[in-house]
Amino acid sequence: MEVKVYSDIMKANDVLAQQNRSFFDKHGLYVLNMLGSPGSGKTTVLERAVEVCRERSGLRIGVIEGDIETSRDAERLDRMGVPVVQINTRGACHLDAAMIGRVLDDLATDQMDVLVVENVGNLVCPAGFELGENGKMTVLSVTEGEDKPVKYPEAFRKSCATIVNKTDLLEHTNVSLDVLERDLLAINPSLRVIPVSGRTGDGIADWVDWLEQTVRDWRTSRK
Amino acid sequence: MEVKVYSDIMKANDVLAQQNRSFFDKHGLYVLNMLGSPGSGKTTVLERAVEVCRERSGLRIGVIEGDIETSRDAERLDRMGVPVVQINTRGACHLDAAMIGRVLDDLATDQMDVLVVENVGNLVCPAGFELGENGKMTVLSVTEGEDKPVKYPEAFRKSCATIVNKTDLLEHTNVSLDVLERDLLAINPSLRVIPVSGRTGDGIADWVDWLEQTVRDWRTSRK
Repeated sequence: MEVKVYSDIMKANDVLAQQNRSFFDKHGLYVLNMLGSPGSGKTTVLERAVEVCRERSGLRIGVIEGDIETSRDAERLDRMGVPVVQINTRGACHLDAAMIGRVLDDLATDQMDVLVVENVGNLVCPAGFELGENGKMTVLSVTEGEDKPVKYPEAFRKSCATIVNKTDLLEHTNVSLDVLERDLLAINPSLRVIPVSGRTGDGIADWVDWLEQTVRDWRTSRK
Repeated sequence: MEVKVYSDIMKANDVLAQQNRSFFDKHGLYVLNMLGSPGSGKTTVLERAVEVCRERSGLRIGVIEGDIETSRDAERLDRMGVPVVQINTRGACHLDAAMIGRVLDDLATDQMDVLVVENVGNLVCPAGFELGENGKMTVLSVTEGEDKPVKYPEAFRKSCATIVNKTDLLEHTNVSLDVLERDLLAINPSLRVIPVSGRTGDGIADWVDWLEQTVRDWRTSRK
Protein backbone atom coordinates (compact mmCIF):
# COMPACT_ATOMS: atom_id res chain seq x y z
CA MET A 1 0.00 0.00 0.00
CA GLU A 2 1.31 3.38 -0.96
CA VAL A 3 1.94 5.75 1.88
CA LYS A 4 0.45 9.13 1.23
CA VAL A 5 2.69 12.03 2.10
CA TYR A 6 1.08 15.39 2.64
CA SER A 7 3.12 18.54 2.55
CA ASP A 8 2.21 22.22 2.55
CA ILE A 9 -0.86 21.42 4.62
CA MET A 10 -2.85 24.58 5.09
CA LYS A 11 -3.09 25.76 8.63
CA ALA A 12 -6.51 26.06 10.23
CA ASN A 13 -6.39 29.84 10.12
CA ASP A 14 -5.68 29.87 6.39
CA VAL A 15 -8.55 27.47 5.66
CA LEU A 16 -10.95 29.72 7.54
CA ALA A 17 -9.49 32.82 5.89
CA GLN A 18 -10.30 31.32 2.48
CA GLN A 19 -13.86 30.70 3.61
CA ASN A 20 -14.15 34.33 4.71
CA ARG A 21 -12.70 35.44 1.38
CA SER A 22 -15.36 33.46 -0.49
CA PHE A 23 -18.05 35.19 1.54
CA PHE A 24 -16.60 38.64 0.83
CA ASP A 25 -16.22 37.84 -2.89
CA LYS A 26 -19.81 36.67 -3.09
CA HIS A 27 -20.95 39.99 -1.66
CA GLY A 28 -18.62 42.06 -3.86
CA LEU A 29 -16.81 43.49 -0.85
CA TYR A 30 -13.22 44.72 -0.98
CA VAL A 31 -11.72 43.99 2.44
CA LEU A 32 -8.81 45.87 3.99
CA ASN A 33 -7.03 44.61 7.11
CA MET A 34 -5.81 47.68 9.02
CA LEU A 35 -2.80 47.26 11.32
CA GLY A 36 -1.02 49.64 13.70
CA SER A 37 0.25 50.24 17.22
CA PRO A 38 -2.12 51.21 20.02
CA GLY A 39 -2.90 54.87 19.61
CA SER A 40 -1.53 55.25 16.08
CA GLY A 41 -4.91 56.74 15.11
CA LYS A 42 -6.59 53.92 13.19
CA THR A 43 -10.14 54.79 14.24
CA THR A 44 -9.62 58.51 13.69
CA VAL A 45 -8.33 58.15 10.10
CA LEU A 46 -11.29 55.85 9.44
CA GLU A 47 -13.74 58.46 10.75
CA ARG A 48 -12.15 61.14 8.55
CA ALA A 49 -12.24 58.84 5.50
CA VAL A 50 -15.94 58.13 6.05
CA GLU A 51 -16.59 61.90 6.05
CA VAL A 52 -14.67 62.46 2.80
CA CYS A 53 -16.40 59.49 1.12
CA ARG A 54 -19.78 60.94 2.08
CA GLU A 55 -18.90 64.40 0.72
CA ARG A 56 -18.00 62.69 -2.56
CA SER A 57 -21.04 60.39 -2.45
CA GLY A 58 -18.41 57.73 -2.97
CA LEU A 59 -17.47 54.45 -1.33
CA ARG A 60 -19.57 53.23 1.57
CA ILE A 61 -17.25 51.98 4.30
CA GLY A 62 -18.24 49.29 6.77
CA VAL A 63 -16.06 48.28 9.70
CA ILE A 64 -15.19 45.33 11.92
CA GLU A 65 -13.56 46.63 15.09
CA GLY A 66 -11.06 44.37 16.84
CA ASP A 67 -10.19 45.21 20.43
CA ILE A 68 -9.03 43.20 23.40
CA GLU A 69 -11.68 44.86 25.54
CA THR A 70 -14.32 47.62 25.33
CA SER A 71 -16.51 48.69 22.41
CA ARG A 72 -15.36 52.31 22.41
CA ASP A 73 -14.10 52.35 18.83
CA ALA A 74 -17.25 50.71 17.47
CA GLU A 75 -19.39 53.21 19.37
CA ARG A 76 -17.49 56.10 17.79
CA LEU A 77 -18.23 54.76 14.31
CA ASP A 78 -21.79 53.76 15.16
CA ARG A 79 -22.52 57.33 16.23
CA MET A 80 -21.55 58.35 12.67
CA GLY A 81 -24.00 55.83 11.24
CA VAL A 82 -21.24 53.52 9.97
CA PRO A 83 -22.26 49.84 9.83
CA VAL A 84 -19.92 48.31 12.40
CA VAL A 85 -19.45 45.09 14.34
CA GLN A 86 -17.20 44.89 17.41
CA ILE A 87 -15.09 41.84 18.22
CA ASN A 88 -13.59 41.64 21.71
CA THR A 89 -10.69 39.22 21.65
CA ARG A 90 -10.67 38.89 25.47
CA GLY A 91 -6.92 38.95 25.83
CA ALA A 92 -5.84 37.73 22.40
CA CYS A 93 -3.33 40.05 20.76
CA HIS A 94 -4.69 39.77 17.21
CA LEU A 95 -7.79 38.92 15.22
CA ASP A 96 -7.85 35.55 13.52
CA ALA A 97 -9.95 34.15 10.69
CA ALA A 98 -12.23 32.24 13.05
CA MET A 99 -13.21 35.41 14.90
CA ILE A 100 -14.04 37.11 11.60
CA GLY A 101 -15.99 34.06 10.38
CA ARG A 102 -18.19 34.15 13.45
CA VAL A 103 -19.45 37.70 12.75
CA LEU A 104 -20.01 37.47 8.97
CA ASP A 105 -23.75 37.02 9.35
CA ASP A 106 -23.94 40.22 11.39
CA LEU A 107 -22.40 42.36 8.66
CA ALA A 108 -24.77 44.68 6.81
CA THR A 109 -23.07 43.77 3.53
CA ASP A 110 -25.71 45.56 1.45
CA GLN A 111 -24.77 48.84 3.14
CA MET A 112 -21.05 48.80 2.29
CA ASP A 113 -18.65 48.69 -0.67
CA VAL A 114 -15.51 48.32 1.38
CA LEU A 115 -15.04 46.51 4.66
CA VAL A 116 -12.20 47.77 6.83
CA VAL A 117 -11.14 45.42 9.60
CA GLU A 118 -9.46 47.50 12.28
CA ASN A 119 -7.21 44.99 13.97
CA VAL A 120 -6.10 44.97 17.63
CA GLY A 121 -3.58 47.74 18.32
CA ASN A 122 -0.37 45.81 17.89
CA LEU A 123 2.30 46.34 15.27
CA VAL A 124 3.55 42.77 15.54
CA CYS A 125 1.20 39.81 15.88
CA PRO A 126 -1.76 40.72 13.64
CA ALA A 127 0.54 40.69 10.59
CA GLY A 128 0.85 36.91 10.93
CA PHE A 129 -2.85 36.07 10.63
CA GLU A 130 -4.75 36.21 7.33
CA LEU A 131 -8.40 37.11 7.82
CA GLY A 132 -9.53 36.65 4.22
CA GLU A 133 -8.76 40.26 3.30
CA ASN A 134 -7.83 41.55 -0.15
CA GLY A 135 -5.06 43.71 1.24
CA LYS A 136 -3.38 44.97 4.38
CA MET A 137 -2.55 48.52 5.35
CA THR A 138 -0.72 50.05 8.29
CA VAL A 139 -1.22 53.23 10.29
CA LEU A 140 1.97 54.64 11.82
CA SER A 141 2.04 57.93 13.72
CA VAL A 142 5.05 60.22 13.58
CA THR A 143 5.04 60.43 17.38
CA GLU A 144 6.05 56.76 17.49
CA GLY A 145 9.47 57.73 16.13
CA GLU A 146 11.42 57.35 12.93
CA ASP A 147 12.83 53.91 13.67
CA LYS A 148 9.58 51.92 13.75
CA PRO A 149 9.68 50.58 10.16
CA VAL A 150 13.13 49.02 10.56
CA LYS A 151 12.30 47.69 14.03
CA TYR A 152 8.90 46.23 13.09
CA PRO A 153 9.23 45.52 9.35
CA GLU A 154 6.77 42.65 8.93
CA ALA A 155 3.53 44.66 8.98
CA PHE A 156 4.95 47.14 6.46
CA ARG A 157 6.34 44.38 4.26
CA LYS A 158 2.85 42.89 3.95
CA SER A 159 0.99 46.19 3.45
CA CYS A 160 -0.20 47.84 0.25
CA ALA A 161 -0.27 51.26 1.88
CA THR A 162 0.97 52.96 5.03
CA ILE A 163 -0.72 56.03 6.44
CA VAL A 164 1.81 58.19 8.27
CA ASN A 165 -0.47 59.89 10.77
CA LYS A 166 -0.26 62.86 13.15
CA THR A 167 1.79 64.99 10.74
CA ASP A 168 0.44 68.02 12.64
CA LEU A 169 2.81 66.99 15.47
CA LEU A 170 5.82 66.52 13.15
CA GLU A 171 7.51 69.76 14.25
CA HIS A 172 7.48 68.53 17.86
CA THR A 173 9.32 65.31 17.00
CA ASN A 174 12.78 64.40 15.69
CA VAL A 175 11.17 62.55 12.80
CA SER A 176 11.96 63.27 9.15
CA LEU A 177 9.17 62.24 6.76
CA ASP A 178 11.84 61.68 4.09
CA VAL A 179 13.76 59.22 6.25
CA LEU A 180 10.55 57.47 7.25
CA GLU A 181 9.45 57.11 3.63
CA ARG A 182 12.92 55.99 2.51
CA ASP A 183 13.00 53.27 5.19
CA LEU A 184 9.45 52.16 4.40
CA LEU A 185 10.23 51.84 0.69
CA ALA A 186 13.45 49.95 1.45
CA ILE A 187 11.32 47.37 3.27
CA ASN A 188 8.58 47.33 0.64
CA PRO A 189 9.27 49.14 -2.67
CA SER A 190 5.64 48.90 -3.82
CA LEU A 191 4.24 50.44 -0.62
CA ARG A 192 2.12 53.55 -1.04
CA VAL A 193 3.08 56.02 1.71
CA ILE A 194 0.36 58.54 2.58
CA PRO A 195 1.08 61.31 5.14
CA VAL A 196 -2.08 62.51 6.90
CA SER A 197 -3.26 64.31 9.98
CA GLY A 198 -6.36 62.73 11.47
CA ARG A 199 -6.69 65.83 13.60
CA THR A 200 -6.60 68.54 10.89
CA GLY A 201 -7.80 66.37 8.02
CA ASP A 202 -4.67 67.06 5.92
CA GLY A 203 -3.98 64.24 3.49
CA ILE A 204 -7.21 62.34 4.21
CA ALA A 205 -8.37 63.00 0.62
CA ASP A 206 -5.17 61.28 -0.58
CA TRP A 207 -5.95 58.18 1.37
CA VAL A 208 -9.51 58.11 0.09
CA ASP A 209 -8.14 58.60 -3.47
CA TRP A 210 -5.87 55.61 -2.92
CA LEU A 211 -8.74 53.54 -1.52
CA GLU A 212 -11.04 54.40 -4.44
CA GLN A 213 -8.34 53.55 -6.99
CA THR A 214 -7.55 50.29 -5.19
CA VAL A 215 -11.20 49.23 -5.21
CA ARG A 216 -11.57 50.23 -8.90
CA ASP A 217 -8.50 48.16 -9.83
CA TRP A 218 -9.82 45.21 -7.84
CA ARG A 219 -13.24 45.40 -9.50
CA THR A 220 -11.61 45.55 -12.94
CA SER A 221 -9.45 42.53 -12.13
CA ARG A 222 -12.55 40.49 -11.23
CA LYS A 223 -14.27 41.00 -14.57
CA MET B 1 -0.93 0.91 41.91
CA GLU B 2 -1.89 4.43 42.78
CA VAL B 3 -2.29 6.79 39.90
CA LYS B 4 -0.50 10.03 40.49
CA VAL B 5 -2.43 13.12 39.54
CA TYR B 6 -0.52 16.29 38.86
CA SER B 7 -2.22 19.62 38.84
CA ASP B 8 -0.95 23.19 38.64
CA ILE B 9 2.01 21.97 36.66
CA MET B 10 4.33 24.89 36.08
CA LYS B 11 4.69 25.88 32.51
CA ALA B 12 8.11 25.78 30.89
CA ASN B 13 8.36 29.55 30.81
CA ASP B 14 7.69 29.83 34.54
CA VAL B 15 10.29 27.19 35.38
CA LEU B 16 12.90 29.10 33.39
CA ALA B 17 11.76 32.41 34.89
CA GLN B 18 12.43 31.00 38.37
CA GLN B 19 15.91 29.96 37.27
CA ASN B 20 16.56 33.49 36.01
CA ARG B 21 15.26 34.90 39.29
CA SER B 22 17.69 32.75 41.26
CA PHE B 23 20.53 34.08 39.13
CA PHE B 24 19.44 37.71 39.69
CA ASP B 25 19.00 37.12 43.44
CA LYS B 26 22.45 35.60 43.70
CA HIS B 27 23.92 38.73 42.11
CA GLY B 28 21.83 41.11 44.21
CA LEU B 29 20.15 42.60 41.14
CA TYR B 30 16.71 44.18 41.20
CA VAL B 31 15.11 43.44 37.82
CA LEU B 32 12.42 45.52 36.17
CA ASN B 33 10.50 44.31 33.10
CA MET B 34 9.60 47.41 31.05
CA LEU B 35 6.55 47.19 28.78
CA GLY B 36 5.00 49.61 26.30
CA SER B 37 3.79 50.19 22.75
CA PRO B 38 6.23 50.76 19.90
CA GLY B 39 7.39 54.36 20.15
CA SER B 40 6.08 55.03 23.65
CA GLY B 41 9.59 56.20 24.55
CA LYS B 42 10.99 53.32 26.60
CA THR B 43 14.61 53.78 25.51
CA THR B 44 14.47 57.56 25.89
CA VAL B 45 13.17 57.50 29.48
CA LEU B 46 15.88 54.95 30.26
CA GLU B 47 18.56 57.22 28.81
CA ARG B 48 17.29 60.14 30.88
CA ALA B 49 17.14 57.99 34.05
CA VAL B 50 20.75 56.90 33.54
CA GLU B 51 21.78 60.56 33.35
CA VAL B 52 19.95 61.46 36.58
CA CYS B 53 21.37 58.43 38.39
CA ARG B 54 24.88 59.49 37.37
CA GLU B 55 24.35 63.06 38.57
CA ARG B 56 23.30 61.61 41.92
CA SER B 57 26.10 59.01 41.92
CA GLY B 58 23.21 56.66 42.56
CA LEU B 59 21.94 53.41 41.09
CA ARG B 60 23.90 51.86 38.24
CA ILE B 61 21.45 50.73 35.59
CA GLY B 62 22.14 47.83 33.24
CA VAL B 63 19.86 46.91 30.36
CA ILE B 64 18.67 43.97 28.29
CA GLU B 65 17.16 45.29 25.06
CA GLY B 66 14.43 43.20 23.43
CA ASP B 67 13.65 43.95 19.80
CA ILE B 68 12.28 41.94 16.93
CA GLU B 69 15.07 43.22 14.71
CA THR B 70 17.98 45.71 14.81
CA SER B 71 20.29 46.67 17.65
CA ARG B 72 19.51 50.39 17.49
CA ASP B 73 18.28 50.73 21.06
CA ALA B 74 21.25 48.84 22.50
CA GLU B 75 23.62 51.02 20.47
CA ARG B 76 22.02 54.16 21.92
CA LEU B 77 22.65 52.91 25.46
CA ASP B 78 26.08 51.51 24.65
CA ARG B 79 27.15 54.94 23.43
CA MET B 80 26.32 56.22 26.92
CA GLY B 81 28.52 53.54 28.49
CA VAL B 82 25.54 51.58 29.85
CA PRO B 83 26.18 47.82 30.17
CA VAL B 84 23.69 46.43 27.66
CA VAL B 85 22.88 43.18 25.88
CA GLN B 86 20.60 43.07 22.83
CA ILE B 87 18.19 40.21 22.16
CA ASN B 88 16.66 40.01 18.68
CA THR B 89 13.53 37.89 18.86
CA ARG B 90 13.45 37.39 15.06
CA GLY B 91 9.74 37.81 14.70
CA ALA B 92 8.54 36.87 18.18
CA CYS B 93 6.29 39.52 19.69
CA HIS B 94 7.63 39.27 23.25
CA LEU B 95 10.64 38.21 25.29
CA ASP B 96 10.37 34.92 27.15
CA ALA B 97 12.32 33.46 30.05
CA ALA B 98 14.40 31.21 27.79
CA MET B 99 15.67 34.18 25.79
CA ILE B 100 16.70 35.93 29.00
CA GLY B 101 18.31 32.76 30.35
CA ARG B 102 20.51 32.49 27.29
CA VAL B 103 22.14 35.91 27.82
CA LEU B 104 22.68 35.82 31.61
CA ASP B 105 26.37 34.96 31.27
CA ASP B 106 26.87 38.03 29.06
CA LEU B 107 25.57 40.43 31.70
CA ALA B 108 28.16 42.59 33.44
CA THR B 109 26.39 42.01 36.75
CA ASP B 110 29.21 43.63 38.75
CA GLN B 111 28.59 46.91 36.90
CA MET B 112 24.88 47.28 37.74
CA ASP B 113 22.52 47.55 40.71
CA VAL B 114 19.34 47.40 38.67
CA LEU B 115 18.68 45.50 35.47
CA VAL B 116 15.97 46.95 33.26
CA VAL B 117 14.65 44.57 30.60
CA GLU B 118 13.20 46.70 27.83
CA ASN B 119 10.69 44.36 26.25
CA VAL B 120 9.57 44.27 22.60
CA GLY B 121 7.35 47.25 21.77
CA ASN B 122 3.95 45.69 22.28
CA LEU B 123 1.34 46.60 24.87
CA VAL B 124 -0.26 43.16 24.77
CA CYS B 125 1.79 39.97 24.58
CA PRO B 126 4.84 40.68 26.77
CA ALA B 127 2.56 41.04 29.83
CA GLY B 128 1.87 37.29 29.64
CA PHE B 129 5.46 36.09 30.00
CA GLU B 130 7.37 36.20 33.28
CA LEU B 131 11.10 36.69 32.77
CA GLY B 132 12.19 36.29 36.40
CA GLU B 133 11.80 39.99 37.13
CA ASN B 134 11.01 41.54 40.52
CA GLY B 135 8.46 43.90 39.01
CA LYS B 136 6.91 45.17 35.82
CA MET B 137 6.44 48.75 34.68
CA THR B 138 4.77 50.31 31.66
CA VAL B 139 5.57 53.33 29.52
CA LEU B 140 2.56 54.98 27.92
CA SER B 141 2.81 58.17 25.86
CA VAL B 142 0.05 60.77 25.90
CA THR B 143 0.07 60.80 22.08
CA GLU B 144 -1.33 57.24 22.16
CA GLY B 145 -4.61 58.62 23.46
CA GLU B 146 -6.58 58.61 26.68
CA ASP B 147 -8.34 55.28 26.09
CA LYS B 148 -5.32 52.98 26.12
CA PRO B 149 -5.53 51.83 29.77
CA VAL B 150 -9.13 50.62 29.43
CA LYS B 151 -8.46 49.05 26.03
CA TYR B 152 -5.22 47.28 27.04
CA PRO B 153 -5.60 46.79 30.81
CA GLU B 154 -3.45 43.70 31.38
CA ALA B 155 -0.02 45.36 31.23
CA PHE B 156 -1.17 48.09 33.62
CA ARG B 157 -2.81 45.59 35.95
CA LYS B 158 0.50 43.77 36.34
CA SER B 159 2.69 46.87 36.69
CA CYS B 160 4.05 48.53 39.82
CA ALA B 161 4.47 51.86 38.01
CA THR B 162 3.40 53.53 34.78
CA ILE B 163 5.39 56.33 33.23
CA VAL B 164 3.08 58.66 31.29
CA ASN B 165 5.53 60.00 28.73
CA LYS B 166 5.61 62.87 26.20
CA THR B 167 3.80 65.30 28.51
CA ASP B 168 5.44 68.09 26.47
CA LEU B 169 2.94 67.17 23.70
CA LEU B 170 -0.06 67.12 26.02
CA GLU B 171 -1.43 70.47 24.76
CA HIS B 172 -1.55 69.06 21.22
CA THR B 173 -3.71 66.10 22.23
CA ASN B 174 -7.23 65.60 23.58
CA VAL B 175 -5.81 63.75 26.56
CA SER B 176 -6.49 64.72 30.17
CA LEU B 177 -3.81 63.52 32.59
CA ASP B 178 -6.50 63.37 35.29
CA VAL B 179 -8.68 61.01 33.26
CA LEU B 180 -5.68 58.88 32.33
CA GLU B 181 -4.60 58.58 35.97
CA ARG B 182 -8.16 57.89 37.14
CA ASP B 183 -8.54 55.07 34.59
CA LEU B 184 -5.11 53.63 35.44
CA LEU B 185 -5.91 53.57 39.16
CA ALA B 186 -9.31 51.99 38.49
CA ILE B 187 -7.46 49.12 36.80
CA ASN B 188 -4.73 48.93 39.43
CA PRO B 189 -5.22 50.95 42.65
CA SER B 190 -1.62 50.39 43.80
CA LEU B 191 -0.09 51.61 40.54
CA ARG B 192 2.35 54.52 40.83
CA VAL B 193 1.64 56.93 37.95
CA ILE B 194 4.60 59.13 36.97
CA PRO B 195 4.14 61.83 34.28
CA VAL B 196 7.40 62.62 32.47
CA SER B 197 8.75 64.15 29.31
CA GLY B 198 11.65 62.18 27.89
CA ARG B 199 12.29 65.13 25.62
CA THR B 200 12.50 67.96 28.21
CA GLY B 201 13.49 65.82 31.19
CA ASP B 202 10.45 66.92 33.23
CA GLY B 203 9.49 64.29 35.80
CA ILE B 204 12.50 62.05 35.17
CA ALA B 205 13.74 62.75 38.72
CA ASP B 206 10.38 61.43 40.01
CA TRP B 207 10.83 58.17 38.21
CA VAL B 208 14.38 57.81 39.48
CA ASP B 209 13.07 58.59 43.01
CA TRP B 210 10.52 55.82 42.60
CA LEU B 211 13.15 53.40 41.30
CA GLU B 212 15.53 54.18 44.18
CA GLN B 213 12.77 53.72 46.75
CA THR B 214 11.64 50.48 45.13
CA VAL B 215 15.18 49.06 45.19
CA ARG B 216 15.66 50.19 48.82
CA ASP B 217 12.39 48.49 49.86
CA TRP B 218 13.40 45.33 48.02
CA ARG B 219 16.83 45.24 49.69
CA THR B 220 15.23 45.74 53.11
CA SER B 221 12.77 42.91 52.44
CA ARG B 222 15.67 40.54 51.66
CA LYS B 223 17.42 41.03 55.00
